Amino acid sequence: MDCGLRNAGWESEMAGVNQSSLGKIAVVGSGAVGCYYGGMLAHGGHDVHFLMRAHLETVKRDGFTIFTKGSEVRLPQVRCAAATAEIGPVDVVLIAVKATANRELERLLPPLLGAETALLTLQNGLGNEEFLSERWGAGRVMGALCFVCINRTAPSVIRHIDHGSISIGEFRRPASARVRALVAAFRAVGIEAKAVDDLARERWRKLLWNIPFNGLSIAAGANVAEVLADRNLRTLARALMAEGLDAARRLGHDIPDSFADWQLDRSETMGAYKPSSMIDHELGRPVEVEALWGEPLRQGLAAGAKMPRLEMLHGLIRHHTARGALRGG
Amino acid sequence: MDCGLRNAGWESEMAGVNQSSLGKIAVVGSGAVGCYYGGMLAHGGHDVHFLMRAHLETVKRDGFTIFTKGSEVRLPQVRCAAATAEIGPVDVVLIAVKATANRELERLLPPLLGAETALLTLQNGLGNEEFLSERWGAGRVMGALCFVCINRTAPSVIRHIDHGSISIGEFRRPASARVRALVAAFRAVGIEAKAVDDLARERWRKLLWNIPFNGLSIAAGANVAEVLADRNLRTLARALMAEGLDAARRLGHDIPDSFADWQLDRSETMGAYKPSSMIDHELGRPVEVEALWGEPLRQGLAAGAKMPRLEMLHGLIRHHTARGALRGG
Repeated sequence: MDCGLRNAGWESEMAGVNQSSLGKIAVVGSGAVGCYYGGMLAHGGHDVHFLMRAHLETVKRDGFTIFTKGSEVRLPQVRCAAATAEIGPVDVVLIAVKATANRELERLLPPLLGAETALLTLQNGLGNEEFLSERWGAGRVMGALCFVCINRTAPSVIRHIDHGSISIGEFRRPASARVRALVAAFRAVGIEAKAVDDLARERWRKLLWNIPFNGLSIAAGANVAEVLADRNLRTLARALMAEGLDAARRLGHDIPDSFADWQLDRSETMGAYKPSSMIDHELGRPVEVEALWGEPLRQGLAAGAKMPRLEMLHGLIRHHTARGALRGG
Repeated sequence: MDCGLRNAGWESEMAGVNQSSLGKIAVVGSGAVGCYYGGMLAHGGHDVHFLMRAHLETVKRDGFTIFTKGSEVRLPQVRCAAATAEIGPVDVVLIAVKATANRELERLLPPLLGAETALLTLQNGLGNEEFLSERWGAGRVMGALCFVCINRTAPSVIRHIDHGSISIGEFRRPASARVRALVAAFRAVGIEAKAVDDLARERWRKLLWNIPFNGLSIAAGANVAEVLADRNLRTLARALMAEGLDAARRLGHDIPDSFADWQLDRSETMGAYKPSSMIDHELGRPVEVEALWGEPLRQGLAAGAKMPRLEMLHGLIRHHTARGALRGG
């Protein structure tokens, strides 16, 4: 059974979803991703409250400006608060903190939780739904994969550079009415969104790209075009995908070989794209090492996969980012 | 049958070896290693001629000063030449150019070659004896492993920091009289030297250390102490040794498992030692990528070894050093 949202009318079907059906929304983690997806919901008329620890006064004064697909979305009034206690219980929390900051959620989330508050993590990689589920119950938890190129270039300015689609699913259950309501709400503001019935499989599909390309962006300092142009790195990226594919299959996810080739082919269109982890690492910000490489490695090994390349990549990235953190911090 | 040296009296046995028994010697590649081993032979009274392309006038004027083991060896007069044609045929050539510059030997060596001139490569890794053998005949070729920490800090100044032993063997043959004569000549000037009967095996034994420690010095930017202190990198270093060990055994070299553990243990005494490749890479100088990683990988794969970590390391190092060369050049 799904965990319904308080007063939210989840069971109404798609065609009839109206903008108020999501109820009260909190965004925890107001980086580029949280500000963009939360900001677009606010733009769609939803009641969105941002936890804003840095830049509170600036955002209160200036709101948000979202540059997206050649147009400009102005949100002159943004509801924001310095603490989740000021926001109080909500119907749904969009969680967009770095996975490396998950422990802070133990303090940040409780004031937002009513009996049926839903938690939607927009975070990368593996382990985030489990983290939420262990603390606040599996019934609350949904996850989303955000395929988006985005930057917050100033406290009040979000630049949406490319892509932007979002795939939303329940944690260990097929898509529910609340998932479809969220999908409809995003679609209503022009965001490509879809409901997925097997969130874990979708996470692995996305990881098959993130593992090599985010990974080599740190371990080799190579952007996407540089990985593809270097015969050895390209071969290595494909071999890392093969290790991930084997792990995903052993974990019960049906992903064909051709998917890895398709991932590699579509990367050709990205040019000198820098994966988010590369930018984080270059700026000395935390990198989600365990969500992107550590947890997939542990799950794969536990399922009997041999993953020597991922193990090596994980070790190298841990070493590089430990130094990065020292440098940056 | 060994390739004897012209007028060199190689067949005299060790006890009776005198300093003139090596005949005329040329050193090609006057970096720290060439200047140190060649300089010490000159100090021992041998007739040593250095090919000196850079700093010829400085070395002609100032000679060499070798700081070694707390004492100072002064060589006020050093025989040096701007071209090998000025040196002419010799009895033995010490080859100490970077393996990456081997193609230059095709032009540099011919003026030095008499019918029985011996070639002793002091270079690192695999493939150098083969390179010489293919061009000038296997009978001329010997190889040496130099276990030495050394810097040329000014054109005329060599600083011997630590270690210094040299192991010399014939290419694909047991140690010969000419090997033993060279060993005796080095011992006579206080250098720890030994003759080895299986040069290829010794090269693999040394590689079991160089592959992980020189490799991770570039791929992870970690010195020896940093590799050992990082649980993931230490595990990775041991796994790279295991891959090398498997390859070496498949190639017929009898090296026990315990050797890898011993290599790891003895590394504990090295502290924050920077492998030579790390220094080369930091200074933007060429790194012997193929001799240290590419050729061992190719030989191991050809012998049926699985070497996913070495393959990945090789790819990462090629990428890092290609960028280093661009930066440096």
